[in-house]
Amino acid sequence: MKAEVIIIGNELLKGRTREGNGHYLTKVLGKHSIHTNKLQIIGDDHAAIAQSVELALATKPELIFVSGGLGPTEDDLTKTSLANIFEVKMTQNELAATITKENYKRMQRPWKPELNFYHHFPKEFTPLNNPVGLAPGIFFTHNKILIFVLPGVPREFRAMLDQECLPIIKQSYPQPIESFDSYTIKTSGLPEENIFNQLCPTLWQDLQQWTNGQGISSLPNLTGIDIVLQLNTSLKPLTDYHTEIMQYFDRSPLAPYIWHYGDEPLAELIVKYLQKMGQTISCAESCTGGLISCLLTDVSGSSEVFPGAFITYSNQQKITQLDVSPKTLESFGAVSPEVAFEMSQGAQKYLKSDYAISITGIAGPEGGSSDTPVGTAYMAITTPTVTKNFHLSFTGDRQTLKKRFSQKALFYLYQEITKTNNSEIL
Amino acid sequence: MKAEVIIIGNELLKGRTREGNGHYLTKVLGKHSIHTNKLQIIGDDHAAIAQSVELALATKPELIFVSGGLGPTEDDLTKTSLANIFEVKMTQNELAATITKENYKRMQRPWKPELNFYHHFPKEFTPLNNPVGLAPGIFFTHNKILIFVLPGVPREFRAMLDQECLPIIKQSYPQPIESFDSYTIKTSGLPEENIFNQLCPTLWQDLQQWTNGQGISSLPNLTGIDIVLQLNTSLKPLTDYHTEIMQYFDRSPLAPYIWHYGDEPLAELIVKYLQKMGQTISCAESCTGGLISCLLTDVSGSSEVFPGAFITYSNQQKITQLDVSPKTLESFGAVSPEVAFEMSQGAQKYLKSDYAISITGIAGPEGGSSDTPVGTAYMAITTPTVTKNFHLSFTGDRQTLKKRFSQKALFYLYQEITKTNNSEIL
Repeated sequence: MKAEVIIIGNELLKGRTREGNGHYLTKVLGKHSIHTNKLQIIGDDHAAIAQSVELALATKPELIFVSGGLGPTEDDLTKTSLANIFEVKMTQNELAATITKENYKRMQRPWKPELNFYHHFPKEFTPLNNPVGLAPGIFFTHNKILIFVLPGVPREFRAMLDQECLPIIKQSYPQPIESFDSYTIKTSGLPEENIFNQLCPTLWQDLQQWTNGQGISSLPNLTGIDIVLQLNTSLKPLTDYHTEIMQYFDRSPLAPYIWHYGDEPLAELIVKYLQKMGQTISCAESCTGGLISCLLTDVSGSSEVFPGAFITYSNQQKITQLDVSPKTLESFGAVSPEVAFEMSQGAQKYLKSDYAISITGIAGPEGGSSDTPVGTAYMAITTPTVTKNFHLSFTGDRQTLKKRFSQKALFYLYQEITKTNNSEIL
Repeated sequence: MKAEVIIIGNELLKGRTREGNGHYLTKVLGKHSIHTNKLQIIGDDHAAIAQSVELALATKPELIFVSGGLGPTEDDLTKTSLANIFEVKMTQNELAATITKENYKRMQRPWKPELNFYHHFPKEFTPLNNPVGLAPGIFFTHNKILIFVLPGVPREFRAMLDQECLPIIKQSYPQPIESFDSYTIKTSGLPEENIFNQLCPTLWQDLQQWTNGQGISSLPNLTGIDIVLQLNTSLKPLTDYHTEIMQYFDRSPLAPYIWHYGDEPLAELIVKYLQKMGQTISCAESCTGGLISCLLTDVSGSSEVFPGAFITYSNQQKITQLDVSPKTLESFGAVSPEVAFEMSQGAQKYLKSDYAISITGIAGPEGGSSDTPVGTAYMAITTPTVTKNFHLSFTGDRQTLKKRFSQKALFYLYQEITKTNNSEIL
């Protein structure tokens, strides 16, 4: 099954708001084996809406999703645009009025129809309930294409996708013909071209036995190259593919460079691993300002393995909270392997954890020097037996550097904890 | 000036990677008064690339940007696609070879042309230097449209946009005819429809005196409604608009609901404000797991006002680090106003800051109860004179809740610090 997605909003074309509904939608559709052909991001403009809808219709997808422009203000054009495009009149819709009335009641606000006209609806279009907001969504069909129009507010979009659209899709297509799943092989230490064009020149071709000639992606990122396969899981279950692919790679020269089969975020791998081992991790963060802890605590169940962290931005806090020696700070500076070393040991000691990770560096844009330029960080990992130092060096703006520092720190941490423990027991 | 943007990558249509290059690009273009018509996100597919380029050309923009598909693997189709679309042959390009050779040298890696064919180039297209990666970008013109093709790796895309594309654009269009700037009026406490359709029924129309009939957006978010105006700053400077708009709103019934003119992130407002006051803030985070600290430290210069934070995920850490009384934890539970109160006071005391903010809650998906369901959080703000409690209640998944908790916490914090201090002195 195929879908076309249209996201409406001037703010998305001005770099003000980062597109998120389309991202969420394509992920959910993917899980239901629905392939997104194209995602069009356009402004609040009748002509742009008309053109993008025409384009979407022309590809003859099973589904079209539209996000945005259902609110009460003058830049909310979607309803009238659609009425024009499909040549239907706007009328008062009783169901839309009922839904709206109930929503206002739930929010304990009086509904004044003249303030938003939520009950005015393109004729014969069906209102969709909005379980967390006010404005009803829209559902209609055209040439057998199911068309859904949802509010742009992310939590409303998500709730309506799950609770309103998916049930309609399932009813219309009770047995999807084909289902697909993503499968990731994570490598580290070799550039893309050396994997595919040197070490394993037949790899791309070989992988086609599982993907039927397409659906292979090679994605470079901070931890190396991810090879992603789209697998037809209506032919056989993912576990069967997994076994076959593992067997293939066991005999491949790429084997020593593969560090994981799967696509869980690093923080999730770490938390799940420590859960199994009954061990804990704490953090002492300076330049990442809490991001490493934030990523770890994004994982449900992290409270079992993460007692807490110190964010020691000032030297004084490094001394007071982590017992970093003032002499070390003075001799080597706050951004040094020596301080990272003591920070990590302090975190392990005072947060009473099995492992600890520390980082101190320069996220910029100020504070760099020729010795320690912006983008430099030192980190340390303390295991139950040893403390190890690591050196990071990246480019980018402040937020990018914080992200890259944190991502790489988690990567090293994962390597260390799986190395320290006897991973066979898992 | 107008631009069309095409972003290529299967991973963007599967919800695997969230689109970021287009977001960054539209923001940068906006700063240079270039309006993005449309952003098309498509897969690694010859037909899709051809169709999207045709569409972009048809709108007759001054600029077209393409991101992605310049790497060395078989899913990198952009170069050959463009050669087909514009009916030019692929040839060996000397400048591309020179650029590539230099880039490999910088990375201290040997360049083997047969592994990536980075020197193979559509005839008469110009290679662009890639100052942080390997593959050259592409520049060419067609019917006077400047067309830029950049790698999809975000840091390469960004560096090349800044260092390669913008200089070419400036050279081709030395004096942009019109320049536009965004201007935001931030309100709180009134729904969209009550602002525009009840309290200020002529507001939308009134605002058109500054926007010339379009370029007004009303954007609901967690802190209220943002009214965003696109102002033609080639007519007069932004400061003049600011004065006029402030004067207008001073006489408007909306005045008591406006809390800021401008669009800085909340964390930046807080950091800049505390810098001016010479005051400091510390955090004690439980359910947000470091996100509040991370947002504060995203601001350059935050080290002046932020000594550090405690992330106390476990009860034991709340007791040990923040001096929360075990009796309070036992009597009221970790997620309670009482614990938030003591956490905040502990942070202020042990991190020696003027202000402190604390939060404890249930980010889910586990851990909720009928009394404190998932989405509940209690926070406290300690000022130099008093500690105040706040109650938060949201819906969403774990990461969404962490974001909403943090955003709202910063909003309350901003209100408190500007209330506590005599803001007149600024």
